[in-house]
Amino acid sequence: MEKKELLAITDHTLLAPASRPADILRTVDEGILFKTASVCIPPCYVKLASAHAKGAIPICTVIGFPHGNSSPAAKANEARLAAEDGADEIDMVINIGLLKAGDTAAALSDIRGVRAACRGKILKVIVETAMLTEEEKRTACEIVSQSGADFIKTSTGYGGGGATPADVRLLRCYTAPSIRVKAAGGIASFDDAEAMVAAGADRLGTSRLVKLYREEVEK
Amino acid sequence: MEKKELLAITDHTLLAPASRPADILRTVDEGILFKTASVCIPPCYVKLASAHAKGAIPICTVIGFPHGNSSPAAKANEARLAAEDGADEIDMVINIGLLKAGDTAAALSDIRGVRAACRGKILKVIVETAMLTEEEKRTACEIVSQSGADFIKTSTGYGGGGATPADVRLLRCYTAPSIRVKAAGGIASFDDAEAMVAAGADRLGTSRLVKLYREEVEK
Repeated sequence: MEKKELLAITDHTLLAPASRPADILRTVDEGILFKTASVCIPPCYVKLASAHAKGAIPICTVIGFPHGNSSPAAKANEARLAAEDGADEIDMVINIGLLKAGDTAAALSDIRGVRAACRGKILKVIVETAMLTEEEKRTACEIVSQSGADFIKTSTGYGGGGATPADVRLLRCYTAPSIRVKAAGGIASFDDAEAMVAAGADRLGTSRLVKLYREEVEK
Repeated sequence: MEKKELLAITDHTLLAPASRPADILRTVDEGILFKTASVCIPPCYVKLASAHAKGAIPICTVIGFPHGNSSPAAKANEARLAAEDGADEIDMVINIGLLKAGDTAAALSDIRGVRAACRGKILKVIVETAMLTEEEKRTACEIVSQSGADFIKTSTGYGGGGATPADVRLLRCYTAPSIRVKAAGGIASFDDAEAMVAAGADRLGTSRLVKLYREEVEK
Protein backbone atom coordinates (compact mmCIF):
# COMPACT_ATOMS: atom_id res chain seq x y z
CA MET A 1 0.00 0.00 0.00
CA GLU A 2 1.04 3.58 -0.56
CA LYS A 3 1.96 5.61 2.48
CA LYS A 4 -1.06 7.85 1.95
CA GLU A 5 -3.33 4.83 1.97
CA LEU A 6 -1.82 3.65 5.25
CA LEU A 7 -2.29 7.13 6.73
CA ALA A 8 -5.92 7.03 5.60
CA ILE A 9 -6.58 4.01 7.83
CA THR A 10 -4.59 5.35 10.79
CA ASP A 11 -6.03 6.79 13.99
CA HIS A 12 -3.40 9.46 14.62
CA THR A 13 -2.92 8.96 18.35
CA LEU A 14 -1.78 11.03 21.32
CA LEU A 15 -2.78 9.51 24.64
CA ALA A 16 0.24 10.21 26.86
CA PRO A 17 -0.95 11.34 30.32
CA ALA A 18 1.26 14.43 30.19
CA SER A 19 -0.22 15.72 26.91
CA ARG A 20 -1.09 19.41 27.04
CA PRO A 21 -3.90 21.20 25.17
CA ALA A 22 -1.37 22.57 22.66
CA ASP A 23 -0.18 19.02 21.89
CA ILE A 24 -3.77 18.01 21.18
CA LEU A 25 -4.36 20.92 18.81
CA ARG A 26 -1.17 20.06 16.91
CA THR A 27 -2.30 16.43 16.67
CA VAL A 28 -5.67 17.48 15.26
CA ASP A 29 -3.96 19.74 12.72
CA GLU A 30 -1.63 16.92 11.67
CA GLY A 31 -4.53 14.51 11.30
CA ILE A 32 -6.37 16.96 9.04
CA LEU A 33 -3.23 17.80 7.04
CA PHE A 34 -2.18 14.20 6.46
CA LYS A 35 -5.74 12.90 6.08
CA THR A 36 -5.70 10.22 8.76
CA ALA A 37 -8.82 8.21 9.59
CA SER A 38 -9.23 10.05 12.90
CA VAL A 39 -7.30 11.62 15.73
CA CYS A 40 -7.33 9.62 18.95
CA ILE A 41 -6.95 11.79 22.06
CA PRO A 42 -7.77 11.61 25.81
CA PRO A 43 -11.39 12.15 26.90
CA CYS A 44 -10.66 15.41 28.75
CA TYR A 45 -9.71 16.96 25.42
CA VAL A 46 -12.60 15.78 23.23
CA LYS A 47 -14.49 19.09 23.48
CA LEU A 48 -11.34 21.05 22.64
CA ALA A 49 -10.41 18.77 19.72
CA SER A 50 -13.94 18.74 18.35
CA ALA A 51 -14.23 22.53 18.47
CA HIS A 52 -10.84 22.85 16.79
CA ALA A 53 -11.51 20.26 14.08
CA LYS A 54 -14.95 21.63 13.18
CA GLY A 55 -15.86 18.35 11.49
CA ALA A 56 -12.71 18.22 9.35
CA ILE A 57 -11.65 14.90 10.92
CA PRO A 58 -13.37 12.34 13.16
CA ILE A 59 -12.48 12.58 16.86
CA CYS A 60 -11.67 9.29 18.56
CA THR A 61 -11.22 8.90 22.32
CA VAL A 62 -10.66 6.18 24.92
CA ILE A 63 -12.89 4.86 27.72
CA GLY A 64 -11.86 2.97 30.85
CA PHE A 65 -8.34 3.48 29.57
CA PRO A 66 -5.89 1.84 29.88
CA HIS A 67 -6.79 -0.64 32.65
CA GLY A 68 -10.40 -1.45 31.72
CA ASN A 69 -11.35 -1.99 35.35
CA SER A 70 -13.57 1.00 35.94
CA SER A 71 -17.10 0.03 36.95
CA PRO A 72 -19.51 -0.75 34.07
CA ALA A 73 -21.70 2.22 35.00
CA ALA A 74 -18.71 4.57 35.03
CA LYS A 75 -17.52 3.32 31.63
CA ALA A 76 -20.98 3.73 30.09
CA ASN A 77 -21.29 7.22 31.52
CA GLU A 78 -17.81 8.17 30.33
CA ALA A 79 -18.75 7.02 26.80
CA ARG A 80 -22.01 8.96 26.88
CA LEU A 81 -20.17 12.12 27.99
CA ALA A 82 -17.51 11.63 25.31
CA ALA A 83 -20.19 11.32 22.63
CA GLU A 84 -21.89 14.48 23.95
CA ASP A 85 -18.53 16.26 23.91
CA GLY A 86 -18.13 15.44 20.21
CA ALA A 87 -16.43 12.04 19.96
CA ASP A 88 -17.17 10.12 16.77
CA GLU A 89 -15.26 6.98 17.74
CA ILE A 90 -14.92 5.31 21.14
CA ASP A 91 -12.07 2.91 21.97
CA MET A 92 -12.94 1.13 25.22
CA VAL A 93 -10.88 -1.41 27.16
CA ILE A 94 -12.49 -4.76 27.94
CA ASN A 95 -12.61 -5.81 31.61
CA ILE A 96 -9.48 -7.98 31.53
CA GLY A 97 -9.91 -9.45 35.02
CA LEU A 98 -13.46 -10.63 34.37
CA LEU A 99 -12.34 -12.10 31.03
CA LYS A 100 -9.51 -13.96 32.77
CA ALA A 101 -11.85 -15.16 35.51
CA GLY A 102 -14.06 -16.72 32.82
CA ASP A 103 -17.00 -14.44 33.62
CA THR A 104 -17.78 -13.84 29.96
CA ALA A 105 -21.34 -12.72 30.74
CA ALA A 106 -20.08 -9.84 32.90
CA ALA A 107 -17.35 -8.90 30.40
CA LEU A 108 -19.96 -8.87 27.59
CA SER A 109 -22.44 -6.86 29.65
CA ASP A 110 -19.72 -4.28 30.36
CA ILE A 111 -19.20 -3.74 26.61
CA ARG A 112 -22.92 -3.68 25.85
CA GLY A 113 -23.38 -0.96 28.45
CA VAL A 114 -20.88 1.22 26.61
CA ARG A 115 -22.43 0.26 23.26
CA ALA A 116 -25.85 1.41 24.45
CA ALA A 117 -24.41 4.65 25.85
CA CYS A 118 -22.90 5.77 22.51
CA ARG A 119 -25.27 4.45 19.84
CA GLY A 120 -24.37 5.68 16.36
CA LYS A 121 -20.70 6.13 17.22
CA ILE A 122 -18.01 3.72 16.10
CA LEU A 123 -17.10 1.44 19.03
CA LYS A 124 -13.77 -0.38 19.26
CA VAL A 125 -13.00 -2.86 22.02
CA ILE A 126 -9.38 -3.14 23.15
CA VAL A 127 -8.64 -6.64 24.43
CA GLU A 128 -5.00 -6.06 25.49
CA THR A 129 -3.56 -9.14 23.82
CA ALA A 130 -0.20 -8.91 25.62
CA MET A 131 -1.96 -9.76 28.91
CA LEU A 132 -3.93 -12.72 27.52
CA THR A 133 -3.28 -16.40 26.87
CA GLU A 134 -4.16 -17.76 23.43
CA GLU A 135 -7.37 -19.22 24.83
CA GLU A 136 -8.30 -15.91 26.50
CA LYS A 137 -7.68 -14.13 23.18
CA ARG A 138 -10.16 -16.44 21.46
CA THR A 139 -12.70 -15.91 24.24
CA ALA A 140 -12.24 -12.15 23.86
CA CYS A 141 -13.00 -12.50 20.14
CA GLU A 142 -16.23 -14.34 20.94
CA ILE A 143 -17.29 -11.74 23.48
CA VAL A 144 -16.60 -8.82 21.13
CA SER A 145 -18.42 -10.64 18.31
CA GLN A 146 -21.60 -10.63 20.41
CA SER A 147 -21.26 -7.11 21.77
CA GLY A 148 -22.43 -4.89 18.92
CA ALA A 149 -18.99 -3.29 18.65
CA ASP A 150 -17.58 -2.25 15.27
CA PHE A 151 -13.92 -3.12 15.85
CA ILE A 152 -11.77 -5.37 17.97
CA LYS A 153 -8.44 -3.73 18.85
CA THR A 154 -5.25 -5.40 19.98
CA SER A 155 -3.67 -3.11 22.58
CA THR A 156 -3.75 0.07 24.61
CA GLY A 157 -0.04 0.71 24.15
CA TYR A 158 0.27 0.70 27.96
CA GLY A 159 -0.14 -3.01 28.65
CA GLY A 160 3.40 -4.28 28.34
CA GLY A 161 3.19 -5.15 24.65
CA GLY A 162 1.63 -3.96 21.40
CA ALA A 163 0.17 -5.41 18.23
CA THR A 164 1.83 -8.35 16.51
CA PRO A 165 0.92 -9.77 13.09
CA ALA A 166 0.18 -13.11 14.79
CA ASP A 167 -2.34 -11.50 17.15
CA VAL A 168 -3.95 -9.51 14.34
CA ARG A 169 -4.35 -12.76 12.40
CA LEU A 170 -5.84 -14.48 15.45
CA LEU A 171 -8.33 -11.66 16.06
CA ARG A 172 -9.28 -11.69 12.36
CA CYS A 173 -9.87 -15.47 12.43
CA TYR A 174 -11.90 -15.70 15.62
CA THR A 175 -13.98 -12.50 15.45
CA ALA A 176 -17.20 -12.26 13.42
CA PRO A 177 -16.41 -11.14 9.83
CA SER A 178 -18.56 -8.01 10.17
CA ILE A 179 -16.26 -6.72 12.91
CA ARG A 180 -13.11 -4.95 11.79
CA VAL A 181 -9.67 -5.25 13.37
CA LYS A 182 -7.55 -2.38 14.66
CA ALA A 183 -3.86 -2.95 15.34
CA ALA A 184 -2.31 -0.58 17.88
CA GLY A 185 0.72 -0.39 20.12
CA GLY A 186 4.29 -0.33 18.90
CA ILE A 187 3.62 0.37 15.19
CA ALA A 188 6.79 2.34 14.51
CA SER A 189 7.30 2.25 10.73
CA PHE A 190 5.44 1.93 7.43
CA ASP A 191 6.82 -1.61 7.20
CA ASP A 192 5.19 -2.43 10.56
CA ALA A 193 1.97 -0.92 9.25
CA GLU A 194 2.12 -3.02 6.05
CA ALA A 195 2.66 -6.16 8.10
CA MET A 196 -0.42 -5.42 10.20
CA VAL A 197 -2.56 -4.83 7.12
CA ALA A 198 -1.24 -8.03 5.54
CA ALA A 199 -2.26 -9.88 8.71
CA GLY A 200 -5.80 -8.52 8.48
CA ALA A 201 -5.85 -5.10 10.13
CA ASP A 202 -8.44 -2.62 8.83
CA ARG A 203 -7.33 0.23 11.04
CA LEU A 204 -4.05 1.22 12.72
CA GLY A 205 -3.40 3.21 15.88
CA THR A 206 -0.08 5.07 16.11
CA SER A 207 1.50 8.51 16.20
CA ARG A 208 4.61 7.37 14.38
CA LEU A 209 3.37 7.17 10.79
CA VAL A 210 2.44 10.84 10.67
CA LYS A 211 5.75 11.74 12.30
CA LEU A 212 7.71 9.72 9.71
CA TYR A 213 5.67 11.02 6.79
CA ARG A 214 5.98 14.58 8.03
CA GLU A 215 9.77 14.30 8.31
CA GLU A 216 9.86 12.90 4.77
CA VAL A 217 7.72 15.59 3.11
CA GLU A 218 9.42 18.39 5.06
CA LYS A 219 12.94 17.30 4.11
CA MET B 1 8.36 1.76 63.77
CA GLU B 2 7.21 -1.79 64.35
CA LYS B 3 6.08 -3.77 61.33
CA LYS B 4 2.53 -3.87 62.65
CA GLU B 5 2.51 -0.09 62.93
CA LEU B 6 3.66 0.21 59.32
CA LEU B 7 0.95 -2.22 58.22
CA ALA B 8 -1.60 -0.12 60.11
CA ILE B 9 -0.83 2.89 57.87
CA THR B 10 -0.69 0.85 54.65
CA ASP B 11 -3.36 0.77 51.95
CA HIS B 12 -2.99 -2.90 50.93
CA THR B 13 -3.15 -2.51 47.18
CA LEU B 14 -4.10 -4.63 44.19
CA LEU B 15 -4.73 -2.58 41.07
CA ALA B 16 -3.26 -4.74 38.30
CA PRO B 17 -5.61 -4.72 35.27
CA ALA B 18 -5.62 -8.53 35.12
CA SER B 19 -6.83 -8.93 38.75
CA ARG B 20 -9.67 -11.41 39.06
CA PRO B 21 -12.51 -11.35 41.62
CA ALA B 22 -10.78 -14.11 43.61
CA ASP B 23 -7.62 -11.98 43.85
CA ILE B 24 -9.69 -9.13 45.25
CA LEU B 25 -11.33 -11.32 47.90
CA ARG B 26 -7.91 -12.60 48.99
CA THR B 27 -6.64 -9.02 49.21
CA VAL B 28 -9.58 -8.02 51.39
CA ASP B 29 -9.01 -11.04 53.65
CA GLU B 30 -5.31 -10.18 53.96
CA GLY B 31 -6.11 -6.56 54.78
CA ILE B 32 -8.47 -7.65 57.55
CA LEU B 33 -6.06 -10.29 58.87
CA PHE B 34 -3.02 -8.04 58.95
CA LYS B 35 -4.98 -4.94 60.02
CA THR B 36 -3.96 -2.59 57.20
CA ALA B 37 -5.41 0.92 56.94
CA SER B 38 -7.52 -0.10 53.94
CA VAL B 39 -7.55 -2.29 50.87
CA CYS B 40 -7.11 -0.43 47.59
CA ILE B 41 -8.75 -2.19 44.64
CA PRO B 42 -10.11 -1.30 41.15
CA PRO B 43 -13.50 0.46 40.94
CA CYS B 44 -15.21 -2.48 39.19
CA TYR B 45 -14.66 -4.54 42.34
CA VAL B 46 -15.76 -2.04 45.02
CA LYS B 47 -19.21 -3.60 45.41
CA LEU B 48 -17.70 -7.08 45.68
CA ALA B 49 -15.02 -6.00 48.17
CA SER B 50 -17.47 -4.00 50.26
CA ALA B 51 -19.93 -6.90 50.47
CA HIS B 52 -17.09 -9.25 51.40
CA ALA B 53 -15.52 -6.95 54.01
CA LYS B 54 -18.82 -6.11 55.72
CA GLY B 55 -17.25 -3.06 57.33
CA ALA B 56 -14.23 -4.95 58.72
CA ILE B 57 -11.82 -2.77 56.72
CA PRO B 58 -12.16 0.47 54.74
CA ILE B 59 -12.41 0.03 50.96
CA CYS B 60 -10.23 2.34 48.90
CA THR B 61 -10.47 2.67 45.11
CA VAL B 62 -9.02 4.73 42.27
CA ILE B 63 -10.61 7.31 39.94
CA GLY B 64 -9.39 8.43 36.52
CA PHE B 65 -6.63 5.91 37.04
CA PRO B 66 -3.83 5.80 36.09
CA HIS B 67 -3.70 8.55 33.41
CA GLY B 68 -5.84 11.24 35.04
CA ASN B 69 -7.08 12.51 31.68
CA SER B 70 -10.69 11.41 31.81
CA SER B 71 -13.11 14.32 31.53
CA PRO B 72 -13.91 16.14 34.79
CA ALA B 73 -17.56 15.08 34.57
CA ALA B 74 -16.58 11.43 34.07
CA LYS B 75 -14.20 11.52 37.03
CA ALA B 76 -16.81 13.09 39.30
CA ASN B 77 -19.40 10.54 38.23
CA GLU B 78 -16.95 7.66 38.70
CA ALA B 79 -16.25 8.89 42.25
CA ARG B 80 -19.97 9.21 43.02
CA LEU B 81 -20.59 5.67 41.76
CA ALA B 82 -17.65 4.33 43.76
CA ALA B 83 -18.98 5.95 46.94
CA GLU B 84 -22.44 4.47 46.23
CA ASP B 85 -20.82 1.07 45.67
CA GLY B 86 -19.25 1.26 49.13
CA ALA B 87 -15.87 2.98 48.75
CA ASP B 88 -14.63 4.74 51.89
CA GLU B 89 -11.53 6.24 50.32
CA ILE B 90 -11.02 7.64 46.82
CA ASP B 91 -7.57 7.98 45.20
CA MET B 92 -7.93 10.17 42.12
CA VAL B 93 -5.26 11.16 39.59
CA ILE B 94 -4.74 14.87 38.96
CA ASN B 95 -5.02 16.06 35.34
CA ILE B 96 -1.30 15.98 34.58
CA GLY B 97 -1.54 17.66 31.17
CA LEU B 98 -3.48 20.66 32.49
CA LEU B 99 -1.04 20.96 35.39
CA LYS B 100 1.90 20.94 32.96
CA ALA B 101 0.16 23.46 30.71
CA GLY B 102 -0.07 25.83 33.69
CA ASP B 103 -3.87 25.73 33.71
CA THR B 104 -4.04 25.45 37.50
CA ALA B 105 -7.64 26.67 37.58
CA ALA B 106 -8.81 23.76 35.43
CA ALA B 107 -6.69 21.23 37.33
CA LEU B 108 -8.13 22.51 40.63
CA SER B 109 -11.68 22.48 39.32
CA ASP B 110 -11.21 18.86 38.20
CA ILE B 111 -10.31 17.84 41.78
CA ARG B 112 -13.08 19.93 43.33
CA GLY B 113 -15.61 18.16 41.10
CA VAL B 114 -14.51 14.82 42.50
CA ARG B 115 -14.44 16.27 46.04
CA ALA B 116 -18.07 17.40 45.68
CA ALA B 117 -19.10 14.02 44.24
CA CYS B 118 -17.84 12.02 47.24
CA ARG B 119 -18.36 14.26 50.25
CA GLY B 120 -17.62 12.50 53.52
CA LYS B 121 -15.18 10.06 51.93
CA ILE B 122 -11.43 10.37 52.28
CA LEU B 123 -10.03 11.89 49.07
CA LYS B 124 -6.41 11.45 47.99
CA VAL B 125 -4.96 13.20 44.96
CA ILE B 126 -2.21 11.41 43.07
CA VAL B 127 0.13 13.91 41.41
CA GLU B 128 2.40 11.39 39.63
CA THR B 129 5.69 12.92 40.72
CA ALA B 130 7.81 10.92 38.24
CA MET B 131 6.20 12.87 35.37
CA LEU B 132 6.69 16.31 36.94
CA THR B 133 9.48 18.86 37.16
CA GLU B 134 10.33 20.23 40.63
CA GLU B 135 8.35 23.38 39.85
CA GLU B 136 5.35 21.36 38.67
CA LYS B 137 5.50 19.32 41.90
CA ARG B 138 5.29 22.52 43.94
CA THR B 139 2.38 23.75 41.82
CA ALA B 140 0.63 20.42 42.35
CA CYS B 141 1.06 20.87 46.12
CA GLU B 142 -0.56 24.31 45.91
CA ILE B 143 -3.48 22.99 43.85
CA VAL B 144 -4.12 20.07 46.18
CA SER B 145 -3.87 22.39 49.21
CA GLN B 146 -6.83 24.40 47.87
CA SER B 147 -8.91 21.44 46.70
CA GLY B 148 -10.50 20.12 49.89
CA ALA B 149 -8.66 16.79 49.51
CA ASP B 150 -7.45 14.90 52.58
CA PHE B 151 -4.20 13.51 51.16
CA ILE B 152 -1.65 14.23 48.45
CA LYS B 153 -0.19 11.03 47.00
CA THR B 154 3.04 10.60 45.08
CA SER B 155 2.38 8.03 42.36
CA THR B 156 0.02 5.64 40.62
CA GLY B 157 2.66 2.91 40.30
CA TYR B 158 2.07 3.03 36.53
CA GLY B 159 3.76 6.32 35.70
CA GLY B 160 7.34 5.26 35.13
CA GLY B 161 8.48 5.83 38.71
CA GLY B 162 7.28 5.52 42.29
CA ALA B 163 7.66 7.32 45.59
CA THR B 164 11.05 8.62 46.70
CA PRO B 165 11.93 10.06 50.13
CA ALA B 166 12.91 13.31 48.40
CA ASP B 167 9.49 13.64 46.78
CA VAL B 168 7.68 12.77 50.00
CA ARG B 169 9.67 15.50 51.75
CA LEU B 170 8.84 17.98 48.98
CA LEU B 171 5.11 17.18 49.14
CA ARG B 172 5.20 17.50 52.92
CA CYS B 173 6.91 20.90 52.74
CA TYR B 174 4.76 22.50 50.05
CA THR B 175 1.31 21.13 50.88
CA ALA B 176 -0.92 22.65 53.59
CA PRO B 177 -0.17 21.04 57.00
CA SER B 178 -3.74 19.76 57.33
CA ILE B 179 -3.28 17.57 54.25
CA ARG B 180 -1.63 14.21 54.81
CA VAL B 181 0.93 12.58 52.49
CA LYS B 182 0.62 9.11 50.97
CA ALA B 183 3.70 7.47 49.47
CA ALA B 184 2.98 4.84 46.83
CA GLY B 185 4.77 3.08 44.00
CA GLY B 186 7.80 0.86 44.41
CA ILE B 187 7.67 0.42 48.21
CA ALA B 188 9.16 -3.06 48.33
CA SER B 189 10.43 -3.56 51.89
CA PHE B 190 9.88 -2.46 55.48
CA ASP B 191 13.07 -0.40 55.15
CA ASP B 192 11.53 1.44 52.18
CA ALA B 193 8.42 2.00 54.27
CA GLU B 194 10.44 3.38 57.20
CA ALA B 195 12.26 5.75 54.86
CA MET B 196 8.96 7.10 53.54
CA VAL B 197 7.62 7.64 57.05
CA ALA B 198 10.86 9.35 58.07
CA ALA B 199 10.44 11.68 55.08
CA GLY B 200 6.93 12.63 56.19
CA ALA B 201 4.54 10.00 54.82
CA ASP B 202 1.34 9.41 56.85
CA ARG B 203 0.08 6.59 54.64
CA LEU B 204 1.71 4.02 52.37
CA GLY B 205 0.37 2.27 49.29
CA THR B 206 1.83 -1.17 48.45
CA SER B 207 1.05 -4.87 48.29
CA ARG B 208 4.56 -5.88 49.29
CA LEU B 209 4.48 -5.25 53.04
CA VAL B 210 1.62 -7.70 53.60
CA LYS B 211 3.35 -10.24 51.38
CA LEU B 212 6.62 -9.93 53.32
CA TYR B 213 4.90 -10.01 56.70
CA ARG B 214 2.80 -12.99 55.68
CA GLU B 215 5.89 -14.93 54.56
CA GLU B 216 7.51 -14.13 57.87
CA VAL B 217 4.63 -15.17 60.14
CA GLU B 218 3.92 -18.29 58.07
CA LYS B 219 7.52 -19.51 58.17
